Order: sequence, then structure tokens, then C-alpha cells
Amino acid sequence: MNPKKEYITLDHGSGGIATHQLISRLFLPEFKNDWLAPLDDSAVFELNGLRVAFTTDSYTVKPIFFPGGDIGSLCIHGTVNDLAVMGARPLYLSAGLIVEEGFPLDDLQTIAASMSAAAAEAGVSIVTGDTKVVSRGQADGVFINTAGLGTIPEGVKVSGALAEPGDDVLVSGPMGDHGTAVLLTREGLVFDSPIRSDSAPLNGLVAAILEVSKNIHVFRDPTRGGLATTLNEIALASQVGIRLAEELIPVRPEVAAACELLGLDPLYVANEGRLIVIAPHSETAAILSAMQQHRYGVGATVIGTVTADHPGRVSMKTTIGGTRLVDMLVGEPLPRIC
Amino acid sequence: MNPKKEYITLDHGSGGIATHQLISRLFLPEFKNDWLAPLDDSAVFELNGLRVAFTTDSYTVKPIFFPGGDIGSLCIHGTVNDLAVMGARPLYLSAGLIVEEGFPLDDLQTIAASMSAAAAEAGVSIVTGDTKVVSRGQADGVFINTAGLGTIPEGVKVSGALAEPGDDVLVSGPMGDHGTAVLLTREGLVFDSPIRSDSAPLNGLVAAILEVSKNIHVFRDPTRGGLATTLNEIALASQVGIRLAEELIPVRPEVAAACELLGLDPLYVANEGRLIVIAPHSETAAILSAMQQHRYGVGATVIGTVTADHPGRVSMKTTIGGTRLVDMLVGEPLPRIC
Repeated sequence: MNPKKEYITLDHGSGGIATHQLISRLFLPEFKNDWLAPLDDSAVFELNGLRVAFTTDSYTVKPIFFPGGDIGSLCIHGTVNDLAVMGARPLYLSAGLIVEEGFPLDDLQTIAASMSAAAAEAGVSIVTGDTKVVSRGQADGVFINTAGLGTIPEGVKVSGALAEPGDDVLVSGPMGDHGTAVLLTREGLVFDSPIRSDSAPLNGLVAAILEVSKNIHVFRDPTRGGLATTLNEIALASQVGIRLAEELIPVRPEVAAACELLGLDPLYVANEGRLIVIAPHSETAAILSAMQQHRYGVGATVIGTVTADHPGRVSMKTTIGGTRLVDMLVGEPLPRIC
Repeated sequence: MNPKKEYITLDHGSGGIATHQLISRLFLPEFKNDWLAPLDDSAVFELNGLRVAFTTDSYTVKPIFFPGGDIGSLCIHGTVNDLAVMGARPLYLSAGLIVEEGFPLDDLQTIAASMSAAAAEAGVSIVTGDTKVVSRGQADGVFINTAGLGTIPEGVKVSGALAEPGDDVLVSGPMGDHGTAVLLTREGLVFDSPIRSDSAPLNGLVAAILEVSKNIHVFRDPTRGGLATTLNEIALASQVGIRLAEELIPVRPEVAAACELLGLDPLYVANEGRLIVIAPHSETAAILSAMQQHRYGVGATVIGTVTADHPGRVSMKTTIGGTRLVDMLVGEPLPRIC
């Protein structure tokens, strides 16, 4: 390789700082337009007076099958969730498959069935698709892209840029299950109590919350880069500080143990069925109660607050009493986690 | 490999018979819904009384750069065209990139610039995106998925299922340029007069045609599988026969020569900027004139007619006076042409 040239590294796909730099240096200057919203999960535009959210994601998870899901359920949940966190009602999905020659047809059948079941649960329809096949060794099994669109109900306006000092920060359940489950499976590590991915559709949970309060500032799902990276994005976009309390952040003991073994911090590990909610403190009781009554929000809890000081920063009061800065993910400890 | 199991082959991605079998056997039973229209290029649904077309395609073309275009321009043209042939005005596109570790950053920059220029020419905005990086050897350079949506003007109703006996079949220019250009470049073959891809956005041409006639039955772009496969799809969907005259089908002499060298039939080679128009004979003069005045329709011409007999079949009167059946593409002579 030419030492003067720059090359793509795994860091560029981490969802962390390198990804942000790549996007802002390379793509944003080219694709500049009014709708491109790199820090939110979907673009939003008007069609005939209706607000429409539109999003895309490619899934390259390895292994394709893991405890709690597979690439088929994941590619539906991921895109449904990117729409849901804009406050949108997900409606229609596209699916583009790139399959490696020699991939077993019955595995593809299993994946299609899994996509179908996930779409049915989320109440969305897969309306258009495409399948490409590349020669052996030119891809790794199967990659799936899903794009999706949904409509945003009147009165709903959420964005990563709308967090306000005084807001509470809530999460819907334990952090780090998905990434840990995928990584343990990939590495062939088996625990006594197997860790399952949290992969799930969040549109029902979002709708349940919106039923008890329209006064939500931010919905986000902490996927690539985990809770820490997502909260940093929100702190930057909203120009607020976020203060967490370590003891309040739910992490399953087995996930904590596995992460210690793997040298990971669960706060940086991807989730695929967890929701971050940021809303005024006055709404918290109603939101918490609505979340805890929902199948995918049973473990909902408050983990911190939004502050006016230290804008753009996320800090955490640790269990031993200190305060530490929680940075954005820099490198890529976990390639192909979604 | 287990001899009893079935595996994906390159044929499954050809766009021909194996692709159709895969879709109807594996995906259609799973994804069954009112909008999934496997034989048209986009799904169509209503949003707030507005008809919206939605489509997706993954691009794995090899090589990434070829005479007349690159994967960046191609992924915009392809999706713009899938919308345009539904009679839709393409508006918003998503872009999902899967990049192999080690891919040169300046090549990615070139591709982004190319996407941007193609989007600007077509009048569409790339509003949402995603970049995944996989390890060296787990992909081949870069794959791009684009999904797109557009709105269908009132009074426009075109579909591959609407061809009627008595209609004329028109094409916008010479057949086979794109696939031949890509294949020659891939094989390292250089001709005296280099063959350039026809890759181009067709929404302007479609709009120009709709301005002189709303009475269009079918728009299609003959991509994977070429003119022959696309016309077979239309004949099947419309339950009509299509009769072509070989001498009327435009093929550049250098493309014909290259195809002979490569053992290909230009009628099965992919185009990425050519339009098929099927409309009542009474409209033909106006349509032809509108097409020929457009930059991307200069070579427009009538190549055949739609018949009531031999429904589902495409036949061709050959230059030596015989008639032969023009089948759908069976195998895959041309992997990774788009």
C-alpha cells in the first residue's frame, strides 16, 4: 500500500469518532441538502403535508445466527427502531440482500422466515426487495440492507438535538446484551446462563410512551458504540451536559462478567432493542410506568439527568464516588456487531 | 458441502429464471402483502392520498470504475430509474455502503462525488445513509445499496402488467452498452473505440414522454438479463405476446463485435440508461418525437409490437427471415454487472 494514501479501517465503521469524521469529511460536503440529518436516525421530510421519516442500515453481523436473533430479525428491528426513535410509525420496508455464492439455501429460508416474523410483530410490510449474488470469497455469507419509511403523528417532535437542562435520562432495560451475545457466539465462548441479544422492535414501546406524554424531547436507540457514544451524540447535538450515575445504569451481572473477560465496557457495547428516553422531569413518573408495563420496557429506569454545564460532555458519578468523563467510542472493539 | 443441501449459485443473482424461482419460492411466501410487486421495479402505496413508489437495489459492480461511470453514478441512476419506470418523480434516496477494510479513502471520495453529481443531475436528494466496514477479504472493495422514493403524478398508471395487443414496443437507444463496457474493462480488453456504459438517469426522459402522452402502458429499463429478459417479464405479467424484428433492434457495431468475442448476445446484456416504452400505436409518433429530442432518447426507435397470440412469449423475426423464440435468461453469463 502507498504510505501517503489513506485507507479505510475497521474504526471507520465503528459508529464512533472515526465514523463521524468520515461522514463529516467525505459524505456531508458532497450530499449537502436540507434533509440530511447525520446525527438523527432518520431523515424527515414532508409529503403532501404529512411528515415522513426515511432511514437505511446495512447489516453485516457475524455470526448470522446468535442467541436471541439472527441477521433476519436484526435487519427488521434495526430499521423499525431507527424510524420509531424519530417518533414515526414504521410502515414500509425494503430489503436488499447480497449473498455469497455457496450460501446454504435453507439458511436463507430461515433468514427470510425470521424477517417475516419480525416484520409481522412490528406491523410493517416488506414491500420491495433485491437479491445480488457475488462469487465465493467476495462477501461473507449474507449482508442485508433494509431501508424503511414511516409517518410522524402530529404534535410529535423528537430529535437528538432537543435535550434540555433539567430533563431526565431513561433507558428501557439492561445495557450491552446484544453485542455481548454476538461476540461470545463469534468467539465460541459458552456461559452457564447464555446471554441473549436484546434485539426487538421498539415502535410499540414508543407508541405506549407517546400515549401518556407528548412532551418527549429525545428518543434514541443505543446501537453501534453503545449507550456512551449515543449519549455523547445527544450531548453534542443538543449542546447540553449529561450526568449519569453508574449505580443506576442497568447491566446484567453475566453481561458485566463477560465484558470483563472480553476487555469491553458494557456502556460501549451495542444494543438492538433498548430505548433511551429524554424528557422533562415532570413527565418521568408517567413515562416510567408506561414503559414498565410494556413487554420491551420492563427494566425501564432513570439513569441520569441533563445539565446546562459542560455542554457536549457526558460524565458519570462512579460507584466509588468519583466522577469520570464518558467519551465517545474511538476505536472499534466490536466489528460486525450489527 | 452436503450433496443433499442446496446452495446459492451465481445464477440466483442473474435476474433471469433462477432469480425468479428464488424469489417466488423463498421470499414471496414469506413477505406476502398487498404491495409487494416482484415483477415491477418499485412498490406503490398511498400516503395521505398521494401515490408513493418505493424501491431498493444493491450494487456490486466489478470493476468499481468503468468507462462512462462508476459504482457511485450507477447506484443513483439505477434507483432513480426503478422509480421513473413506475411513472414516479424520484425525490429522496438513501445510501448504505459496505466497505472492505483497506479500501482507498480517495476512491471512496471519488465515489461520493460521483453519487452527488448523479443525484444533482437527476434532481434527487440523498437524505439518509449508513456506512459499515468489514474486515479485509469479507467483501470486495465497496458495495452500495440505494433505496428511493418518489411520487406518482395523478393520471399516470404504468406497469409491466399493462401491455395490450396492438401496442408498439420502443427502446430509447442501443442495447448492451453498459454490460459490455463493464465486462471488457473487467477482462482488461481494450478496443480501438472504447465502449462506454449507457448509465444515465431516465426520469427526465420519462417526464418528457408523459408530457406528450399520458396513454403509456409500460415503462421499464432493461437492466440485469437485458432486453430479452425484461420483455419476457412484461409478456408474462401482461399475458400478451411480444414480436420483435431483429433488424429494428439498435446495437452498436462495436458492441455487437465485442459480444461476439465474449460469447454473449447483446439482447441479454444489461443496460443502465435505456428505456423500454410500450404504448398504443396511435401514440407512437408523438412519443418517438419527444424521446428523440431528449438527451437520453436520441436513438429512440420502434422495435416490435404486442400481440394477442402466444401470451407470455417473446419472438423475433430474424434478419435472415426466420422467427425464433427469445427466452428469458437462464444462467448468469455476467455476474456483478450492476
